[in-house]
Amino acid sequence: MVANSPTYTENNAGKPVGIAVLGMGTVGTEVIRLLAENSEDFRQRVGGPLELRGVAVDDTSKPRRGVDPEMITGDAHALIARDDVDVVVELIGGIEYPRELVLAALRAGKSVVTANKALVAAHADELAQAAEESGVDLYFEAAVAAAIPVVGMLRRSLAGDQIQRISGIVNGTTNFILDKMITEGMGYDEALQIATDLGYAEADPTADVDGHDAASKAAIMASLGFYTRVNFKDVHCEGIRDITAADIAAADKAGYVIKLLGICEKITDDQGNDAVNARVHPTLVAKDHPLASVNESYNAIFVEAEAAGSLMFYGNGAGGDPTASAVLGDLVGASRNKVHGGRAPGDNTYANLPIADFGEVHTRYHIDMEVVDRAGVLSDLSATFAQQGISLRTVRQEENEDGIARLIVVTHSAKESVLHDTVEALKKSSDVKKVHSVIRLDV
Amino acid sequence: MVANSPTYTENNAGKPVGIAVLGMGTVGTEVIRLLAENSEDFRQRVGGPLELRGVAVDDTSKPRRGVDPEMITGDAHALIARDDVDVVVELIGGIEYPRELVLAALRAGKSVVTANKALVAAHADELAQAAEESGVDLYFEAAVAAAIPVVGMLRRSLAGDQIQRISGIVNGTTNFILDKMITEGMGYDEALQIATDLGYAEADPTADVDGHDAASKAAIMASLGFYTRVNFKDVHCEGIRDITAADIAAADKAGYVIKLLGICEKITDDQGNDAVNARVHPTLVAKDHPLASVNESYNAIFVEAEAAGSLMFYGNGAGGDPTASAVLGDLVGASRNKVHGGRAPGDNTYANLPIADFGEVHTRYHIDMEVVDRAGVLSDLSATFAQQGISLRTVRQEENEDGIARLIVVTHSAKESVLHDTVEALKKSSDVKKVHSVIRLDV
Repeated sequence: MVANSPTYTENNAGKPVGIAVLGMGTVGTEVIRLLAENSEDFRQRVGGPLELRGVAVDDTSKPRRGVDPEMITGDAHALIARDDVDVVVELIGGIEYPRELVLAALRAGKSVVTANKALVAAHADELAQAAEESGVDLYFEAAVAAAIPVVGMLRRSLAGDQIQRISGIVNGTTNFILDKMITEGMGYDEALQIATDLGYAEADPTADVDGHDAASKAAIMASLGFYTRVNFKDVHCEGIRDITAADIAAADKAGYVIKLLGICEKITDDQGNDAVNARVHPTLVAKDHPLASVNESYNAIFVEAEAAGSLMFYGNGAGGDPTASAVLGDLVGASRNKVHGGRAPGDNTYANLPIADFGEVHTRYHIDMEVVDRAGVLSDLSATFAQQGISLRTVRQEENEDGIARLIVVTHSAKESVLHDTVEALKKSSDVKKVHSVIRLDV
Repeated sequence: MVANSPTYTENNAGKPVGIAVLGMGTVGTEVIRLLAENSEDFRQRVGGPLELRGVAVDDTSKPRRGVDPEMITGDAHALIARDDVDVVVELIGGIEYPRELVLAALRAGKSVVTANKALVAAHADELAQAAEESGVDLYFEAAVAAAIPVVGMLRRSLAGDQIQRISGIVNGTTNFILDKMITEGMGYDEALQIATDLGYAEADPTADVDGHDAASKAAIMASLGFYTRVNFKDVHCEGIRDITAADIAAADKAGYVIKLLGICEKITDDQGNDAVNARVHPTLVAKDHPLASVNESYNAIFVEAEAAGSLMFYGNGAGGDPTASAVLGDLVGASRNKVHGGRAPGDNTYANLPIADFGEVHTRYHIDMEVVDRAGVLSDLSATFAQQGISLRTVRQEENEDGIARLIVVTHSAKESVLHDTVEALKKSSDVKKVHSVIRLDV
C-alpha cells in the first residue's frame, strides 16, 4: 500500500494564477485573446482565475491589438522573474533565446508551456532536468501537430500499454504540396509555389520540405512513446524535394500515394537488443490505409500498440488557432497543478534505448529503373536481389514508346543497408541504364 | 500569483500501490495478465510497483487462469476495505452492484478506475460527490470507445478550448451491422445474424441495436465536453432496427451512408438561452465526411471546437484488449497520483446547462415517400413544407416500374418539432400513399 498517501490540497483554490506570455506572433495573439474572452471558463476549469501579468516582445514600439499596452515589455527575464508569475508560456520560435528563457523560468520555479518543437527536440534533457529540480511542469502539447493531442495520448492515455510503432503525417506544408501533386498532377515546383502563395509554405521552405520540422516531431514522439531519449540529431531525415510527378504517377499505378511520414519504431537488432529508430522520409502508403486519405494540410498520427491495436488521430496540425488550443489546454493543466498540487507526468526515459543505426532498420523499397532491352535482363536483375537475400513482392516490366524497358520492383521487407547497397550495385550494373527513383514503403 | 504553491511531494516514491480488481471477465483477465507481464514498465511509469492485492469474482469455484488462486475472493467489500488497497478497478458490468462497490471504494478513500459506461452515465453525480468528498480520483476512459482517448481529450487536451459539437460512431456492433448492409447490400436481420455469429452482437442485442449503449457514451461525452450534467435518461435515443436495405440504397443514391451517431451539441433556444442536447439516431453522413469511411466495428469521434477546429479520433472502440489498454492507462494515472500527490481533473459541471427539448434542436430530414401520380403533386407537397418555413435542399422525383411516383426530399436545417409535425401532416395527406422512411442528416 501507499503508506503515506499525500492528500488533495485545495489550499490555493480560488487564488489567481499569474501568466507570462513570451512572444506575440499569431499564436501568442490568439492565446491572449482567448484567455480574455473565456476568462470565466478558465477560472472554472482551473479552480482560480488566470491573470495575465505581461507579454514580452522583441519590438515594444509596435502597436499590439487586444492587449493593454502596459502589459507589453521588452524585458522577458524581468517578467519571468516576477513573484506573481506562476506559469510562463513560451511562443517565440528559434532555439537559443527561448532555451535561455525557458531554463530561467523552470529554474525560478515557474511551470512552462511551450509550442517550440525545435527547442524540445534539441534540448529535452536539459529542460527536463531543470523542471525536475524545481518540481514544476514542462508542457509541450502544441509542439507536435498542434491541437491533435499526441503528447497527452502518448504520455497519459497509452501509459498502460506498449507502443510498437508511431507513424504520422506531421507536417502540413509538405502534405499540402504532395496532395496537390497527387490530386492535380502538378510537379513539385508548381505545388510549392501554390503552397507559398497560400501561406502554407514560408519564403524559405527548407525546414518543411527537407523534413526538419517533421524530424523534430518524430524525435518528441519517439521519446514519449518509447520512454527513451531521441533528439532531433538522431532522426534520419529525407525531404520531398526530389519527388517528381512521375514518381507520384508510378506510385498511383502501384496502388499507393506518397506521403512524408515521421516513423518511430522499436527494433530488435541481430544480437537481440532493443533499439529505437526515428526517421522521416517520403513513403508509399497503400491507398486503403487511413493515412492515405489525409489530404490538404491536415495532419494525422497512426499509433500501433500491443493492447489498444491501431489508433488514428486526425486534425489541423498547424495554424494560430489550433496551436493556441493546445497551448491553452496545457495552460489549464499547468495552472490546475499550481492551484491543486500535483504534477503532470514528466520526462521519463527509463527505457534508455540506444538509437538504431538506420542501416539496421527493416524497410521496403519501390525501385523504378530503366534497363537494357535484352532477353534475360529480368532474370539477371532478379538474381541480384536474390543474392542479397531480398525477396521481391512485385515486379512490373513495361516498355515505353521509345522502346526503353522499364522495370518497377517492390521488395519485401529487408535491412535498409542491404537494400541500399543493392540499389548502388544496380546503378553500376551494365544492365541498368538509369534508376529513376527509390522510395520506401510503409512496412 | 499562487501564494502558497503546493510543492511536488515524492514522499511515496518507490512505495507499492495496492490494486484490487473487481470482476474477471475478458477485460479483467487481460488487465491482470498485462499488469504481471509488464510489471517493470508499470513500476517505472508510476514511480512505484503496482501490486495486485486480490480479484473479486462471483464464482470462486471456477478455475481462473493467470492468477494465483489465493488472490481470488468472493467478498468484494472486504477486498476494497483492505488497508493495503489504494486503487480499485471495477470491471463487473451491470449497474446496481458495481455502484454499491464503487461508492464503497470512493468513500473508503480508494481511487477508482471503471470501464462501466452504464454506471457512469446513470449515477455520475453520486459518484463524483463521493470522489470529491474523499479527495480521490474516479477514472473512466474505458467507458467511452475503449482505447480511443475520448475522456482524456475532452477533460484535458481541449480544456482550454470551447467545444461546439461532438459526433461519433461509438457502438461497434451497430457500425458492423450497418457496414454489412452498406457494403454487401444485406438486410438488417441478415447482418445482425452475422454480427451475432461473429461475436460482435450479444444474444440479446437490445443495448446495442436500440442505441442504449451509444446513449450512455453520448451522455458522458456531453457532460465532459460542455461541463454540465447529462445523464443517460436525458439522451434522445433511436436505434437501427427499422433501417432497411432500401434505406441504405436510397441514401447511397443521394451521396450518403447511414451511421448510428451519438451527437452532442450546445444549442441556443428561441429565448437566447444556452442548453445542451445529446441524442443517438441513425444519421445520413455525406460520403466525403471522415466518419463515413469508418468501417466494420471501428469507432470514431469527431469533435468541433472553436480554436482547434475539427479533430477525429479513430480506433477499436470495444473488445478485451483495447478496453484493458484504457483501464491500464487510467490505472497508471490514478496510481501516479497516489504516489506523487495531485488529482486528475475531476467532475466539473459548472456550466450547469439545461437539457434542450429534442423538439427544439435543429436537424435535417431525408424523407422517402410514395405519392399519387398526378400533375401538380410535387408543387402541392412543396407548399406543405414551405408553409412550415422548411426549405428544401434537394427534391428527387422518380417513377418505379409499377408506375408509382416516389419523392425523395432532403430538407435544410429546421427545428426538429416542425420537421416531425410536417411529416405527420404528410402522412395524413391524400397525396401521400406511404412514407417509407425518415432519416436525419448530420447537419
